Amino acid sequence: MIIIMKPHTPKEEILIQKQKLEREGFEVNLSQGENYCILGLIGDTTKIDESKIGANEYVEKILKVQQPYKLANRLFHPDNTVINVKGEKIGGNKIAIMAGPCSVESEEQIVEIARRVKKSGARFLRGGAFKPRTSPYSFQGLKTHGLELLKLARKETGLPIVTEIMTADMIDKFVEDVDVIQVGARNMQNFELLKELGKTRKPILLKRGLSATIEELLMSAEYIMSEGNENVILCERGIRTFENYTRNTLDLSAIPAIKKLSHLPVIVDPSHAAGLWWMVEPLSKAAIAVGADGLIIEVHNDPANAKCDGQQSIKPDKFHRLMEDIDALAQLGSREIYETINF
Amino acid sequence: MIIIMKPHTPKEEILIQKQKLEREGFEVNLSQGENYCILGLIGDTTKIDESKIGANEYVEKILKVQQPYKLANRLFHPDNTVINVKGEKIGGNKIAIMAGPCSVESEEQIVEIARRVKKSGARFLRGGAFKPRTSPYSFQGLKTHGLELLKLARKETGLPIVTEIMTADMIDKFVEDVDVIQVGARNMQNFELLKELGKTRKPILLKRGLSATIEELLMSAEYIMSEGNENVILCERGIRTFENYTRNTLDLSAIPAIKKLSHLPVIVDPSHAAGLWWMVEPLSKAAIAVGADGLIIEVHNDPANAKCDGQQSIKPDKFHRLMEDIDALAQLGSREIYETINF
Amino acid sequence: MIIIMKPHTPKEEILIQKQKLEREGFEVNLSQGENYCILGLIGDTTKIDESKIGANEYVEKILKVQQPYKLANRLFHPDNTVINVKGEKIGGNKIAIMAGPCSVESEEQIVEIARRVKKSGARFLRGGAFKPRTSPYSFQGLKTHGLELLKLARKETGLPIVTEIMTADMIDKFVEDVDVIQVGARNMQNFELLKELGKTRKPILLKRGLSATIEELLMSAEYIMSEGNENVILCERGIRTFENYTRNTLDLSAIPAIKKLSHLPVIVDPSHAAGLWWMVEPLSKAAIAVGADGLIIEVHNDPANAKCDGQQSIKPDKFHRLMEDIDALAQLGSREIYETINF
Amino acid sequence: MIIIMKPHTPKEEILIQKQKLEREGFEVNLSQGENYCILGLIGDTTKIDESKIGANEYVEKILKVQQPYKLANRLFHPDNTVINVKGEKIGGNKIAIMAGPCSVESEEQIVEIARRVKKSGARFLRGGAFKPRTSPYSFQGLKTHGLELLKLARKETGLPIVTEIMTADMIDKFVEDVDVIQVGARNMQNFELLKELGKTRKPILLKRGLSATIEELLMSAEYIMSEGNENVILCERGIRTFENYTRNTLDLSAIPAIKKLSHLPVIVDPSHAAGLWWMVEPLSKAAIAVGADGLIIEVHNDPANAKCDGQQSIKPDKFHRLMEDIDALAQLGSREIYETINF
Repeated sequence: MIIIMKPHTPKEEILIQKQKLEREGFEVNLSQGENYCILGLIGDTTKIDESKIGANEYVEKILKVQQPYKLANRLFHPDNTVINVKGEKIGGNKIAIMAGPCSVESEEQIVEIARRVKKSGARFLRGGAFKPRTSPYSFQGLKTHGLELLKLARKETGLPIVTEIMTADMIDKFVEDVDVIQVGARNMQNFELLKELGKTRKPILLKRGLSATIEELLMSAEYIMSEGNENVILCERGIRTFENYTRNTLDLSAIPAIKKLSHLPVIVDPSHAAGLWWMVEPLSKAAIAVGADGLIIEVHNDPANAKCDGQQSIKPDKFHRLMEDIDALAQLGSREIYETINF
Repeated sequence: MIIIMKPHTPKEEILIQKQKLEREGFEVNLSQGENYCILGLIGDTTKIDESKIGANEYVEKILKVQQPYKLANRLFHPDNTVINVKGEKIGGNKIAIMAGPCSVESEEQIVEIARRVKKSGARFLRGGAFKPRTSPYSFQGLKTHGLELLKLARKETGLPIVTEIMTADMIDKFVEDVDVIQVGARNMQNFELLKELGKTRKPILLKRGLSATIEELLMSAEYIMSEGNENVILCERGIRTFENYTRNTLDLSAIPAIKKLSHLPVIVDPSHAAGLWWMVEPLSKAAIAVGADGLIIEVHNDPANAKCDGQQSIKPDKFHRLMEDIDALAQLGSREIYETINF
Repeated sequence: MIIIMKPHTPKEEILIQKQKLEREGFEVNLSQGENYCILGLIGDTTKIDESKIGANEYVEKILKVQQPYKLANRLFHPDNTVINVKGEKIGGNKIAIMAGPCSVESEEQIVEIARRVKKSGARFLRGGAFKPRTSPYSFQGLKTHGLELLKLARKETGLPIVTEIMTADMIDKFVEDVDVIQVGARNMQNFELLKELGKTRKPILLKRGLSATIEELLMSAEYIMSEGNENVILCERGIRTFENYTRNTLDLSAIPAIKKLSHLPVIVDPSHAAGLWWMVEPLSKAAIAVGADGLIIEVHNDPANAKCDGQQSIKPDKFHRLMEDIDALAQLGSREIYETINF
Repeated sequence: MIIIMKPHTPKEEILIQKQKLEREGFEVNLSQGENYCILGLIGDTTKIDESKIGANEYVEKILKVQQPYKLANRLFHPDNTVINVKGEKIGGNKIAIMAGPCSVESEEQIVEIARRVKKSGARFLRGGAFKPRTSPYSFQGLKTHGLELLKLARKETGLPIVTEIMTADMIDKFVEDVDVIQVGARNMQNFELLKELGKTRKPILLKRGLSATIEELLMSAEYIMSEGNENVILCERGIRTFENYTRNTLDLSAIPAIKKLSHLPVIVDPSHAAGLWWMVEPLSKAAIAVGADGLIIEVHNDPANAKCDGQQSIKPDKFHRLMEDIDALAQLGSREIYETINF
């Protein structure tokens, strides 16, 4: 960490600041330039509270050298983390495809879709039981009944299930019923929820907040990991910009960036990013080409009558063709989609 | 609501869509232009789920005529809402000043600051007991002990207390202990928390999310109101933009915009918006000039040693002078700050 | 175009507005809802000035049905435009690769790089002679001497040259010397320059502005086309967001969006978007996978000593391997990179 | 400037980089932390090209200590710059009010408006002759005829005129005819235009670009100043964000920020920022309260029939009342609006 003191700061104030930092256990390098005096801190600054230093009236600016996350940091964990979900791996050479409807609507719907997406190569079933909706008047999901239906679909197909949690009081139930617990974009900084999830050992699918920086996403992962749960899968799902042709702007540069900064696997949600079904195909391909470890895709057998987000769901046939295309793409990078070829 | 059908949509598809909407109880006006056919819906579209209509493959675009919120909408409630907190009013002619430290640190600290800000004209004491921090390694607040200290400060000064809630399981305690319950920016779309708060009758101070639109802020207010709690105070606290000289960009146009769209009171948080103590003064003045119903300001007796956000806190003396300046400003608009002049 | 009148607008005011619009040649559909009265305009609204209608005090909001651009609009030109530059086509099945240094520095440099990139499959040579720099103290390019060096490199390799124009007074020289004239992001709305370029018949490579919407990019293309020059190639090069790990956020959803809205070819600049050389490879692949018609890539033989933007340039060897990878990717979509295989 | 080397950079590479920088005339402080080695540069880094250093493959990140602008920097010019336009001062205690129509339409229009705004306290007449419009089909201004009409209005009222330039080839005419030359937001980084304007001695009103940072705005001022013209007035006019209730988001924190960083005067354009006439009043007041040196306001005698931007123009009567309100506000800060009170 580098602390830039204001021009014309009295010498004694600089020394006071220096000694204060030394007392906190840092080695401090002092360097006087023409206009600015600079303090360079050596030591583990991960746990320093920047705002406390910034509160000194003589401090002009603070520049970070080291990333503020440790457990999620590739610097200290050079190898890729591979997460094992009931034998299915996320983060390795096989690309993890999660597919399913925005929300679980009925047994027939979820079982039918589960069968179809499995047949096409999906390795996880996604489906919302608890739905965060911007309007209180919109369908809020089947809730615990939805979880039961997901379990039925899992029983029928063997696909592990991925579904979103909204409150900490449901954690025990989710740990019991679910294979991957999703934290939605709007809860990415619901720190209490993250801490509680950190106490479990379940794989957590952590979505990037609507306007979260990559660093903030990794800090939210750090929240979970600092409580002992290292099974974190990151998910890029579009960020908010001034462009409004698409619902959000899918930030695909985030994939190589995250892979550089962290050892955690990262997947892409093309459905929520664009909010347009016909963009799912090109964005999925781009996500694989850029190096994502997986995709989470909305598939619905009857989008026009879906209870939510039908406009961004693709039909099973389209999904099937997409899987074929993506497998070819994956193979170019010595990766693959399909478990076996027997279907 | 206006539905634009894709060019060259078959006539029968347009009729199917029209009939479907009529069955849902809308009157539908059909208008055929040169390239586009348009369906205009008449009726209460607040509760329509846009994404369901957008899922139809022949729909090009949906344009909203009416705002999607009803209870928070000025159209249906022309008069300003004035919220009464133990006799102190928010939303009327008297400007509501809330002041206090970022976080409660000790009895001496909070009582001393409470006394000072009260003397200067503050009508509410703010102070964090539960602190949402981006790093798991940062100070997370004194929690329930912090609430006790706030109650002590209230007892000493009579100032109603405003503090942030982070989880629904604390609602009963907050209803018991606190006068205004704050929902932080990161929880603005924690819909489960909003719904539970809607079941109380406590005043809720709802902060705008880091990248929330004004409409989304009002939809979050609607969540609370739809459960029966109409005591919602909105708070503009800066939005995230590409500009990084300030921590966030204070959006002061949001104040007249919200006043046009809604009847709810709206206050401004200049401390968190800029993240710089020396900007609190000019931004506070601007907030009053633009028509805000109040301010929430971080005041600390020793910012350089504050446990959090010291760099954005002002000292009691500076706060005192600011109140005088703001009172003069308020009087220009036939408003006022001070209860009485006897201090 | 749809005009929403304010609630409680007097009937006569609505009729005045309606008649005014009818006098301007539109058919006007009037539809009275519960709260809002709506006027639907039928006719060519491309040339209507929205702000003139919005100036009426009874108008609440204006919603556009039709895109405001005509010549660039796919609705009126369903087939892809293919631009022919000295026999090299942009917009067809063959992917257009433009490569070269950020700025032309010397004869040896530009000729050497031109040879290398040609050998690897580039079909165009890019290189800046006039450089728009944020600092007046930075290297501003070799200017006309740079153009001469580009011509030498073209003579040596046969590669058509692409270079940026900064002022209208250079148009004659550029028409004479250059094969594709680039308009930089900062000049995307330099409307006078666009109009003058519209009077030539040279292919124009129009870069998206730093915070331009897709619609604005297409309107800038419309400026050029409305003067008679239909040879416009669009270029996505990253937009400005709050994320600052990368210099800009490459908006790859813009590619399918532009292809839907317009018939013009669109290419991607991964070098400027990220500003990081090691992201050029993954972003280039993603751009091809998402459907871009080409790439413009910075290649330098000695990035560490480049006169500008060395941190985003890749070396010729890396470029060569990238071309091979991209050709494989392109073939998956029945497209190709290489002219012939004889090298 | 601080250069952070990648972890595990070979020692000799660090020394090579150090020596290279020393050869360029810097003193270099080397500091080795646990993971990172850091080079601190002492000397004038204003003219260093960051991208050249960043091109070294061992460089992880570059952190700036000093601002990259010198002539516009308050550090080297502590006193406020006051610009004198024919006796009218901008930047001092008297607040500069510029008012007039979006575009000059006719002699009667411009003279009438000039008379009205002068009577209400405006000290400058604004009016567009050359209009940058997003659509080529919109009214583009009366051009040189518009300049003639502005001169007529100046002759009638004595008000100095402010109008926008769009191309460098008009500079001689503007120097002859105009008192303050405006550079629009879209031309803020038209560096060639800035350089040419820097060769004149005319006051330049430089508008912040739609997505320009404060630092970039000051770098554009530096472009003008580096050519010898120190008469630069900055203008905040709203930045582009995801919020679309207003056309842009007026960034009022930019005013105290600019005043801290620079000695140049800074004014606010509330009309373009919001794009809504009814927001001009509250935003104007906020701008004065936050410390702006002036305002540029669109006033039209018949907004409903204005040739452009009528929806953001206020009528002369409203402007008159606004001036009275603003004068009262200004006096609170020991500033003033009116020259004399004799009208």
